Amino acid sequence: MSPTSPIVVLDSGLGGLTVVKAIRAALPHERLVYFGDTARLPYGNKSAAAVTGFVREILSFVRPLQPKHVVFACNTATALAMPALRAAFPELTFSGVIEPGAKAAAAAAGAKERPTIGVIATEATVRSKAYERAIHRRRGHARLLLQPAPSLAPLIEEGRDARDPLLRLALKQYLAPLIKRNIDVLVLGCTHYPVLKGLVARMMGEGVAVIDSADRCADDVARRLGAAGLLHPGGDSASANCVDAPIDRERLRCFVTDDAERFASLAPRFLGARVATPEVVSPERLHAATERDGQAFRQAG
Amino acid sequence: MSPTSPIVVLDSGLGGLTVVKAIRAALPHERLVYFGDTARLPYGNKSAAAVTGFVREILSFVRPLQPKHVVFACNTATALAMPALRAAFPELTFSGVIEPGAKAAAAAAGAKERPTIGVIATEATVRSKAYERAIHRRRGHARLLLQPAPSLAPLIEEGRDARDPLLRLALKQYLAPLIKRNIDVLVLGCTHYPVLKGLVARMMGEGVAVIDSADRCADDVARRLGAAGLLHPGGDSASANCVDAPIDRERLRCFVTDDAERFASLAPRFLGARVATPEVVSPERLHAATERDGQAFRQAG
Repeated sequence: MSPTSPIVVLDSGLGGLTVVKAIRAALPHERLVYFGDTARLPYGNKSAAAVTGFVREILSFVRPLQPKHVVFACNTATALAMPALRAAFPELTFSGVIEPGAKAAAAAAGAKERPTIGVIATEATVRSKAYERAIHRRRGHARLLLQPAPSLAPLIEEGRDARDPLLRLALKQYLAPLIKRNIDVLVLGCTHYPVLKGLVARMMGEGVAVIDSADRCADDVARRLGAAGLLHPGGDSASANCVDAPIDRERLRCFVTDDAERFASLAPRFLGARVATPEVVSPERLHAATERDGQAFRQAG
Repeated sequence: MSPTSPIVVLDSGLGGLTVVKAIRAALPHERLVYFGDTARLPYGNKSAAAVTGFVREILSFVRPLQPKHVVFACNTATALAMPALRAAFPELTFSGVIEPGAKAAAAAAGAKERPTIGVIATEATVRSKAYERAIHRRRGHARLLLQPAPSLAPLIEEGRDARDPLLRLALKQYLAPLIKRNIDVLVLGCTHYPVLKGLVARMMGEGVAVIDSADRCADDVARRLGAAGLLHPGGDSASANCVDAPIDRERLRCFVTDDAERFASLAPRFLGARVATPEVVSPERLHAATERDGQAFRQAG
């Protein structure tokens, strides 16, 4: 792998494109590969065993692309699968969205001795206690309020935005316990939520810092690649993109496990730009790639 | 297979348990096997290729149980996968929820020459046009209004019921176009929706017949088994069940692809009774069963 190798960004579906957007803003010269597991989404109400199995297959599939880094652009996958999979893919480097979000939350809590930090996330992320651990390592005295918001991502994927009364009521219900407890900081603990950041900030009121884990994750990726001497040198002309044209496949190559058209039509909401129709890797093909990868691995070992 | 062989009921997750409830009421002596694909739910926003692939794996897995009948207790799976899979499993008989629902809707429309029939369903079921075809075969002049309700099943699975303001608002939004058009009949075209039947009927108002496809599906199964001479003779004592005890595994054996505890805790909402903790078949194991099944099949052919 080299500075011109791709960065792989993986997610259960579309939400991770908010991370791609942030990485593209921070690192415009990088080549990105996005993998959205749209056949098996969502991950947020599934178990660690199931999510780890799915992500293992995705990693086996992208391994031949020799990525210089893999970003878990999904809070649930970061919480449930990332630690367990490091050992299985020793040649890959991973980073997720939880550590950068927790770091930013700890910083945003400022000098207050016992700040109250809220997190909204999927059921699985809340249950994993990954945010508690990551924040308490930095601010041992922080009070934490974890709020599962299981229907928020489905409502966003349905195409509803900040003006939709149903989405507003859902958000109001999920945020009410956090507003009542006067929290100092709120972490958006799911990569779907940044599309609602403005509305969330208004509902929480002034004085509550709202942390967008997608932005923080992109900064973290830039720092890691810089430290490893793996930043793309830039200088090619492919980064220039016509307005309104889909992003060049050389810059952003997308794979999905189902329904390429649906992905392409919803992508602009999360990415702020169009994508070329992604390549479909069916769950069967993904499974076969994993089998082959496992055999090659066993033979080499 | 014989009259004492099991009936397999399959679904993407929990909704199909409303069909199990109806079958148990209509046919209390039958042995039932339920398969909920909880690792990959929902099916309602996935493509025909993905859903067919998932259901093919489930059928390969249950085939060794020699079921006397297989019920697709999921509108999406019925619409997208059932026709394509008949040829792959010639020794199995299938039935679904759409034909019985369509038949009941056509009958409920009464003598009216051009009745207006509404259907609420998942996006994939609506897109498939399976209800249009099934209703128009019976009532060629019926006006049809198909309304996708993508977030209704997730809100129900979250544990929300008819008293919840968010669920009521969602239902109000989805039903509004149907109420406005003065429909005569409304089909609940997803096996999650029967838990809201009372609320839907009140919102639609008197004079609108609300068709519960779970009930109609159970009647259809009883009719099919009767015609084939495959009804369970009954007479065993296992059908008596203590109140509050989980249903005996001999009467209802459950398999899921993920998170047995979650399934067991949510099941009573749909089934009106408790289930024993189901057996977990991971997607990897399901895939391996399918591979073996495929090989045996190719060798036999």
